[in-house]
Amino acid sequence: MPRATSRATLFEVAAQADVSVSTVSKVLNGRAGVSDETRARIEALLQDHRYQQRSGKRQAAPLLDVLCYEVDSPFGSEVLASIEQSARLQRIGMVLSGATEQATPYAHWVDDVLRRQPVGVVLIACKLSADDRQRLRSRNIPLVMVDPAGTPAPDVPSIGSADWNGGYQATRHLIDLGHTRIGIITGPADMMASTARLSGYRAALDSAGLTGEPELVRPGRFHHADGLEQGRALLSLPDPPTAIFASSDLYALGVYEAARTLGLSIPADLSVVGYDDLSIARWAGPPLTTVHVPLVAMAEQAVHLVMRLNDEPEMAFSRIDIDTTLVVRGSTAARNISK
Amino acid sequence: MPRATSRATLFEVAAQADVSVSTVSKVLNGRAGVSDETRARIEALLQDHRYQQRSGKRQAAPLLDVLCYEVDSPFGSEVLASIEQSARLQRIGMVLSGATEQATPYAHWVDDVLRRQPVGVVLIACKLSADDRQRLRSRNIPLVMVDPAGTPAPDVPSIGSADWNGGYQATRHLIDLGHTRIGIITGPADMMASTARLSGYRAALDSAGLTGEPELVRPGRFHHADGLEQGRALLSLPDPPTAIFASSDLYALGVYEAARTLGLSIPADLSVVGYDDLSIARWAGPPLTTVHVPLVAMAEQAVHLVMRLNDEPEMAFSRIDIDTTLVVRGSTAARNISK
Repeated sequence: MPRATSRATLFEVAAQADVSVSTVSKVLNGRAGVSDETRARIEALLQDHRYQQRSGKRQAAPLLDVLCYEVDSPFGSEVLASIEQSARLQRIGMVLSGATEQATPYAHWVDDVLRRQPVGVVLIACKLSADDRQRLRSRNIPLVMVDPAGTPAPDVPSIGSADWNGGYQATRHLIDLGHTRIGIITGPADMMASTARLSGYRAALDSAGLTGEPELVRPGRFHHADGLEQGRALLSLPDPPTAIFASSDLYALGVYEAARTLGLSIPADLSVVGYDDLSIARWAGPPLTTVHVPLVAMAEQAVHLVMRLNDEPEMAFSRIDIDTTLVVRGSTAARNISK
Repeated sequence: MPRATSRATLFEVAAQADVSVSTVSKVLNGRAGVSDETRARIEALLQDHRYQQRSGKRQAAPLLDVLCYEVDSPFGSEVLASIEQSARLQRIGMVLSGATEQATPYAHWVDDVLRRQPVGVVLIACKLSADDRQRLRSRNIPLVMVDPAGTPAPDVPSIGSADWNGGYQATRHLIDLGHTRIGIITGPADMMASTARLSGYRAALDSAGLTGEPELVRPGRFHHADGLEQGRALLSLPDPPTAIFASSDLYALGVYEAARTLGLSIPADLSVVGYDDLSIARWAGPPLTTVHVPLVAMAEQAVHLVMRLNDEPEMAFSRIDIDTTLVVRGSTAARNISK
C-alpha cells in the first residue's frame, strides 16, 4: 500500500478531529499543550490515514535515540560502547535513555524522541508497545531492536546472535569433557535469546542420549544474585551436577561464589560455562570459558540498518542473527571420575 | 569584567575578520563551509572580544552532552547510568560520546557539540584543551568536570570525591588489622584523584609510624591488567606485603587473580582493599572491602550544576568533593602472625 504522506492528510486529520493544523502538528512533534483526549483522537486519525511524515531535511546535528535495559550492566555497557562508536564514525550523536525494570521506556520517552526527531531509534533488550511503535512509524522514525524483550513484533527489524547455536556449543563442550549431569541457569522466559539458549542446551543433551532433568533447569533474570542462588541450589542437590551452563557471564560469577562458599574448586570440582564473553569473563578467577557474542558486529549492524531504513523506509527486513563462538578458558575441565 | 554579548560584537568581528556575519555565525554554530584559516581568525577575534552568545531560547528538546573516558569500564558505566537518571528526571536527553585513550575528545566532537547547542557539557575523567574550553565558553555552554584528568583548569567547576580521605581510610583499616607491610597500586599521576589517594595512603602510614617503602608503591592506569601485573610483582618480592591497597576495584580483581595463581588465599594470606565500590566489588569472591565513592550524588551534583550555570553563567564555583566511606566485606582480615 502506498504511503499517504503530504500536507493534505494533515489538513484532513485536522478537519476530522475538529482542531487546527497547528494542534495536529503539536501532536506530531511531541509538543505540550494538547489534552490527552484530543491527542488520542488525533493519533487514531493519523493511524487511520496511515500518515507518514516526510523525512525531514538533513539535520545539522543528527541524533540516534537508544533505549537500553540496565545501562550499567556489563552487557548493556558493552553494547552501548559499540553503538556509540558506530554512531560517532558517522558523526551522529547517541542519545541514551535507561528503561524501567519491565524493559519498557519511562513516561514521556516517546514524546521526547518525537521532539528530538532522531534519524532512528535502537532498542537494546527492551520492548515497545504497538501504540508507541505506531507513533514512531507515523513520524517516519525507523526502529531497530537488539536482543528484543517480550514477543517480538514481526514488522520490527531486529539484530541478535545465534543463541540456539551458542547454547548447543556450550553444552556440547561440557559433554565432550565427560560431564553427564549438566545444570543450566536460564534467562527470562519472555526473551527469545534465553529460550533459544535453553533449547540449544536440550538439543545437545538429546544428541548425546542424555536426558535433561527438570531439577537441573533453573530460571533467573540475568542477575548475579540469580547465579548465586540457583548455583547454590544446584550444588546442594542430593546428586549435584558436575558442570553448569550459566547462560550469562554474570550468572557465572554468581556460580563461582556459590562454589567458593561451598568449598568447591573450579574447574577441579565443577566446570562452568558462561555466555556473552564480556570483560568480566576475562577478569574472573579462573578466567571463564564462555560463548562469545559479537557485540561490536551487532552494534554496527544496528546503526547501519537504522541509516538504511532512513533512506529506504519500505525496505523489507526481518532479523539478522550473527554467529557465536565458544571461547575456552580456565573454568572447564574433564569430569573428575574419582568423585 | 562584564560580558560582551550582543549582535554588535558579531558585526564587529565580521568586519575585523573581513568576512560576512553569516560566516561568523557558521563558526559559532560549528557548521561546515569555512576554511580552517578563516575559522581560526574568527575564533581568535571572538576570544579578544570575550564574545559570549546569549543563552538561546528554551529548546523544545534540550540535550546534555557527556564525554566519558572508557564508556564500558565498570566505573564509566556506573557514572553514566547515574547521569542519565538525573538528566531524565529533568527531561533532558543525554548525548554520550566516548573519548580517546588520552582522555581527550575525538576530532569534530567540539564542532558537533556546538551544532547540538546543548544546555551544557559534562566531562567524566577527561580533559579538554584551553582552546576547546574557550569555544564552549564563547557560546555560553557551561562545562562541568567529574574526576577530571590532566591538570584541572582553575576556572572549570569540578565534582569529585574525598580521595585523600578515602586513601587514608583504606590504609588505616589495614593498619588497624595489624598489617605493617602494605602495598599500593596507584592510578595515573596526571589525575588528581589518584595522587590524592596515594597521599592519603602515605599520611596513614606516617600516622602509625610506618615508612612507605618505594618498592611497595606501584603505578598503573586503572586497568585490570595493571592490577594483575603489579599484584604479581608485589607478591613476588623477597619480603612481600601482607596487604594491598588496590586504588580501584578493577585493580583489586587483578590482585585477586595474582593471588589465586600464586596459591595465596584472600583474606587468610593477603588482605585487599579496593576503591569505588562498583558492582564488581560485590560480585568478587570473596566480596571486596572497598572505599565507597558516591557516584549517584556526584552525578546529581554535576547535572544540577550544569543547569545552574545555564541560568547564572557568572556564578562563582570551584570544586565540590563528596565524602567517601569504607565498606568492610570479606577481603580483609587480621594479619596472620604465624606467617
